[in-house]
Amino acid sequence: MEVPLLIDDFLRRPAQLYPAKTAIVDGERRYTYAEFQARVNRLSHALLEMDIQRGDRVCILSPNSHFFLESFYATSQIGVILVPLNYRLVAADHEYILNHAGVKLVLVDHEYTRVVDGIRPNLSSVRHFVVAQDQGEAPDGWSDWEALIAGQPETAPAPVERGENDLVSINYTSGTTARPKGVMLTHRNCYINAYSLIAHLRVSHDDVELWTLPMFHCNGWGGVYALTGMGGTHVVLRAIDAAEIYRLIEREKVTFACMAPTVLRTVLDYPNKDKHAMESRPRFTVAGAPPPAAFIERLETELGWEFIQIYGLTETAPVLTVSHPDFGTETQDYARRSRAGVPAVGVDLVLLDDADRPIPRDGTSVGEVCARSNVVFKGYWEQPEETGKAIRDGYFHTGDLAVWDEVGNIHIVDRKKDVIISGGENISSPDIEDALYRHPAVMECAVIGVPHEKWGETPKALVVLRAGEQASEEQLIAFCRENLAHFKCPTSIEFRDELPRTATGKLQKFKLREPYWSKQRRVG
Amino acid sequence: MEVPLLIDDFLRRPAQLYPAKTAIVDGERRYTYAEFQARVNRLSHALLEMDIQRGDRVCILSPNSHFFLESFYATSQIGVILVPLNYRLVAADHEYILNHAGVKLVLVDHEYTRVVDGIRPNLSSVRHFVVAQDQGEAPDGWSDWEALIAGQPETAPAPVERGENDLVSINYTSGTTARPKGVMLTHRNCYINAYSLIAHLRVSHDDVELWTLPMFHCNGWGGVYALTGMGGTHVVLRAIDAAEIYRLIEREKVTFACMAPTVLRTVLDYPNKDKHAMESRPRFTVAGAPPPAAFIERLETELGWEFIQIYGLTETAPVLTVSHPDFGTETQDYARRSRAGVPAVGVDLVLLDDADRPIPRDGTSVGEVCARSNVVFKGYWEQPEETGKAIRDGYFHTGDLAVWDEVGNIHIVDRKKDVIISGGENISSPDIEDALYRHPAVMECAVIGVPHEKWGETPKALVVLRAGEQASEEQLIAFCRENLAHFKCPTSIEFRDELPRTATGKLQKFKLREPYWSKQRRVG
Repeated sequence: MEVPLLIDDFLRRPAQLYPAKTAIVDGERRYTYAEFQARVNRLSHALLEMDIQRGDRVCILSPNSHFFLESFYATSQIGVILVPLNYRLVAADHEYILNHAGVKLVLVDHEYTRVVDGIRPNLSSVRHFVVAQDQGEAPDGWSDWEALIAGQPETAPAPVERGENDLVSINYTSGTTARPKGVMLTHRNCYINAYSLIAHLRVSHDDVELWTLPMFHCNGWGGVYALTGMGGTHVVLRAIDAAEIYRLIEREKVTFACMAPTVLRTVLDYPNKDKHAMESRPRFTVAGAPPPAAFIERLETELGWEFIQIYGLTETAPVLTVSHPDFGTETQDYARRSRAGVPAVGVDLVLLDDADRPIPRDGTSVGEVCARSNVVFKGYWEQPEETGKAIRDGYFHTGDLAVWDEVGNIHIVDRKKDVIISGGENISSPDIEDALYRHPAVMECAVIGVPHEKWGETPKALVVLRAGEQASEEQLIAFCRENLAHFKCPTSIEFRDELPRTATGKLQKFKLREPYWSKQRRVG
Repeated sequence: MEVPLLIDDFLRRPAQLYPAKTAIVDGERRYTYAEFQARVNRLSHALLEMDIQRGDRVCILSPNSHFFLESFYATSQIGVILVPLNYRLVAADHEYILNHAGVKLVLVDHEYTRVVDGIRPNLSSVRHFVVAQDQGEAPDGWSDWEALIAGQPETAPAPVERGENDLVSINYTSGTTARPKGVMLTHRNCYINAYSLIAHLRVSHDDVELWTLPMFHCNGWGGVYALTGMGGTHVVLRAIDAAEIYRLIEREKVTFACMAPTVLRTVLDYPNKDKHAMESRPRFTVAGAPPPAAFIERLETELGWEFIQIYGLTETAPVLTVSHPDFGTETQDYARRSRAGVPAVGVDLVLLDDADRPIPRDGTSVGEVCARSNVVFKGYWEQPEETGKAIRDGYFHTGDLAVWDEVGNIHIVDRKKDVIISGGENISSPDIEDALYRHPAVMECAVIGVPHEKWGETPKALVVLRAGEQASEEQLIAFCRENLAHFKCPTSIEFRDELPRTATGKLQKFKLREPYWSKQRRVG
């Protein structure tokens, strides 16, 4: 028997089996699985009543909230495609995405209605503006979410014919390199990714997940489905705040969280750690850039929590690889554990050179990470040419560069566009950043290639110092020379107050590079 | 991107990532994942050389062994369909199955070659006879497995075009009610079931699984794929023997085992338990009939091991439901934990009455367990009529009867054909059996309906007493009356030396009923 893999399965199960269990904790509000399902069904009915039909696009622009979680299931069960917007983008980006995706209805958190009102005249496809708020009056021109669903039935809407390769969502990329592209994720992509999370991150019925990762990002790294399917509890964090994170871990007995490396740092640096009596021992899964090994060691030894690194992209729904202690990696080998790790079940991963040939597994050769898997997206929304560039010869080409390490883990060394080629030598910027992070005065850093007459390009470091700490350019370069081959060391250092990052904490190096290369075409 | 879900993924992953990890422990032999993969590839090449092609059927008749594990992957990766034979069947059954499935090549353990030789003249489709043995000469008329693969390359055979709905195996049912039927399991069935095992039985990289369950049975309840995919270790048990089970758990630090309830009893009753120093705390998963609650309590309190009950059929690849402590069930609620439990992710399970209407969830109404899921088989091999009877209106009808209990777990009360209808009352035979099992003298029992002039039928118990214990028919009936409604109590009891069971420990009640009903058509 073949039954379409539809993500509805993940909510239907706990709603039937554990109706009285807490599904969502959002501030002082708590919803059971029965309530969660009822609110989802009501929203589906409301959308249908507003003539939102199968294949239509609905956007949500919101920090993490119970509304956000509801929007995932309310849209997909009636065949509607969700477009989660990154709230950190500027209005012009929102306008671009809403028009590009042809969004018909927007669900917007009360803090963001003014942003949308500012671009409202330019939104040609949007017919309905719905505000998400637990209390208060809807602003002019906005329908209130709660009022819309209030009169709707709690029962499931009439079944809509859907296939497992139909779209669940279009997730616009966070734009480390260019204009956002609409990543089309299917039911099958998200379903298999949910199983992958359950398998490799051990997502279980007893999990209480703290949502530090923004839910707009790649469906919140898949947690929406995996945790719901197992009947776990979602604890919603609206904004990153160390005190609130500790308070929630303590009060809700949080067992699991996914986060950007910057959040991990926030957690580690929180001064009042000792004031909390933690009963649970959360698993902290870090996605995005690999954290310094020292962070992992501190998390596990100082706090007694567990660290897991994963690697993936919006285009891979997202999990491609996972790193935790296994046959090849000891618990205390923190350096190796900070690497991307090993491919998940069902991920055929290869590293290819520029001629698309597999590179040797020698610990030094660098190739582009390419993946063939059911977690790989269907393509870029209305950009068949971009899709054809990304998915070719049966593999998705990630644009990330990696080596096979000595135990067959992959280790991401750089974005393809971020490699510095100096005097014919490939230099991996993370290697230099790792060296700089060992210096006590360095809080954040980014290394880029800048033009150089003799070498083509040369590494330059942009550094944010810790408050109250000092270090000179010469001191930091000398420090690097103690730890790195000379040709790899930065030849100049600039100090900054902050570095440009995407919502998930990825450095936007293209922004840093721009001023240096504006008059010159970069090689490689 | 849509990639066929092929079970090859499960072996390719650990062979690539953990080549030096122990994949199989079989007696004193140990194979790493690299060796496992190499032996699999060699066998594939050998099969191809013998002109075994995509779609052909190959049978394996063997107790648990490394050969058996190898046969799963060596066949499926070249599109060949494996027919695992139940070695406890008689020669006539083997003959029926081999001819029915049109098997072209047989892989036979050295202990079973004589059985096959006895029916050889009647096997019209079989062209090759291969004996599996680690040492010794092949008998006349048999090719030696090791000799066949010795000269073959270790590299993967040329890829064969396959779809995820192609067959992996045809598993003949164990025959509790009738002639064996060939259950066709697809790649997709087995793939999704493997994820289900990983999700709900927490199969992990660090697991060491003791194979007490015969591998022929429904692909060994899915463990072949789930454990391999995560890179765990298979510890092969050739025959059930309590001392050997304890020795292997101790020596190999076993963490996981699936078994029939009879094996659980063997483990609990082993007198020399205390002589073993166990470092691991295995999860014991019981499939088949639910064990008495007292067994669970003893396992967890006396041995400190963990109990998980699962329910499913060969036709469901097999896992439909799983029972362990969750939101609705406390750890010490052993009675509830012995029940079938809650549907797994992706299993839409309903209980239907005779008119195919859902029964009320009232804790007493009884309905047939029906399931819609990707783990449901493709159909019975060359029996479209039987397939049509079993899979209709989008659901597979299991023939098992259950109630929804007070927390929404399903509780299997009987096989549909095993319900006793006495004076218009439905009597569940397991209820009576549970009552009898509480008597200290009862080792095994089975309750069947036998003809009765006034009531249509009446319950009769067949009882095996413990060695050295005594109890009379009157005493046992009186004992039942203390614990059961009178109309449910057996009206007669017969003592037996043993009861007929299938290889997986299911009682074959049809065999017990036969003598009483031979002259009369059973009602209901």
